[in-house]
Amino acid sequence: MEQHMLANIKLLGQKAAQAIDVDLMAKHGFAIEQLMELAGLSVAESIAAEYARGRVLLCIGPGNNGGDGLVAARHLALYGYRVALFYPKQPQKDLYRGLLRQCHAFQIPVVQDLATAIGDSDVIVDALFGFSFAGLPRAPFDRVLEALCGTDKPIVSVDVPSGWDVEAGDREGTGLRPDMLISLTAPKKCAAGFKGRFHYLGGRFVPPEMAASLGLPDYPGTSSCIRLH
Amino acid sequence: MEQHMLANIKLLGQKAAQAIDVDLMAKHGFAIEQLMELAGLSVAESIAAEYARGRVLLCIGPGNNGGDGLVAARHLALYGYRVALFYPKQPQKDLYRGLLRQCHAFQIPVVQDLATAIGDSDVIVDALFGFSFAGLPRAPFDRVLEALCGTDKPIVSVDVPSGWDVEAGDREGTGLRPDMLISLTAPKKCAAGFKGRFHYLGGRFVPPEMAASLGLPDYPGTSSCIRLH
Repeated sequence: MEQHMLANIKLLGQKAAQAIDVDLMAKHGFAIEQLMELAGLSVAESIAAEYARGRVLLCIGPGNNGGDGLVAARHLALYGYRVALFYPKQPQKDLYRGLLRQCHAFQIPVVQDLATAIGDSDVIVDALFGFSFAGLPRAPFDRVLEALCGTDKPIVSVDVPSGWDVEAGDREGTGLRPDMLISLTAPKKCAAGFKGRFHYLGGRFVPPEMAASLGLPDYPGTSSCIRLH
Repeated sequence: MEQHMLANIKLLGQKAAQAIDVDLMAKHGFAIEQLMELAGLSVAESIAAEYARGRVLLCIGPGNNGGDGLVAARHLALYGYRVALFYPKQPQKDLYRGLLRQCHAFQIPVVQDLATAIGDSDVIVDALFGFSFAGLPRAPFDRVLEALCGTDKPIVSVDVPSGWDVEAGDREGTGLRPDMLISLTAPKKCAAGFKGRFHYLGGRFVPPEMAASLGLPDYPGTSSCIRLH
């Protein structure tokens, strides 16, 4: 059954993923705030399905992947997790500033010392880079990635394991091996190289015609996420 | 236990409800699109908890209560309900136009003949007016309210039964008696006069300090809604 689900899903290349995002907004009328809210909610719900209520550190990147992480942080706090953010490069766009203020309202601390924060966590969320990323992470994210590769705490990657090529996977040999991958909207080609324990799909907002063309599975009940394997 | 939950909740007057909305956005950095998405999601999840997958007609008003209804319609479609909208006055604001376009992407029809649509439905959602409403519904909503009062199909009211006073309840004697009331953010004073079967609370986005001051209960697990009675 689970193999069956994966077999039917069309894995997306980088351009196809970008085109779908454009379609959702320009053609179907979604606001970025809606898509990010539902994506981040599904990240939090996936984590809650597999990891006991404990301490979660979210490493937040400078773009939309980081935005998904900020939303997930807030929902994890609502679910009773003890949440902290590592957010070394905070963009000034209203979208991200608003998401960070929401985290402040939930008394989620922003930590400065990554090594200590990793030591103090049970699960670490990699929300650094998503499907728009290409090349190799630059400072300060190169160091963040090194730290994520150097811990034996479980890593949860949002949409794409950071540093991996969106299509070719870990071509650069970063060595990042997440325990969980949460694909958003639809899995990207690099998901074929994911060997961790839990592969989830989230972002339950895809219109039926688009979902059929991508071979997406039916989500169960009212859940915002579905386990693929 | 359930009595206990209700006893601790502070029922909001109209001004207090408006002040909380302002606080969530101006002080805590939420965008209206986020709050509406989470509110509408909780409306859909509440309905899915009590009514079998069937035909749902959503009657949509011209303001934010209608916006919550449009979001709920989309999520109900994702849950497998057969959904239709009655939406007699469609505002031109980008927010509402976007939400309607999303419904179009989900192939949700907008019906014109209310009496026929009510006959064809198993459940009817009253998303006409919320906590900003005062006075008596004007045309064309006076007729919509009459139709909702004249059916024996179950009515689900979003936040405030339409035509009721936000604080005093059905002072004007509209006669609307919803089967379900879904309070959003926190119940309003009129909820004290609700005698239907199901009272839910949704809108799981309230920061902890505000939630404590309102006496809100803890939501279970990852649910976006909680049954109050």
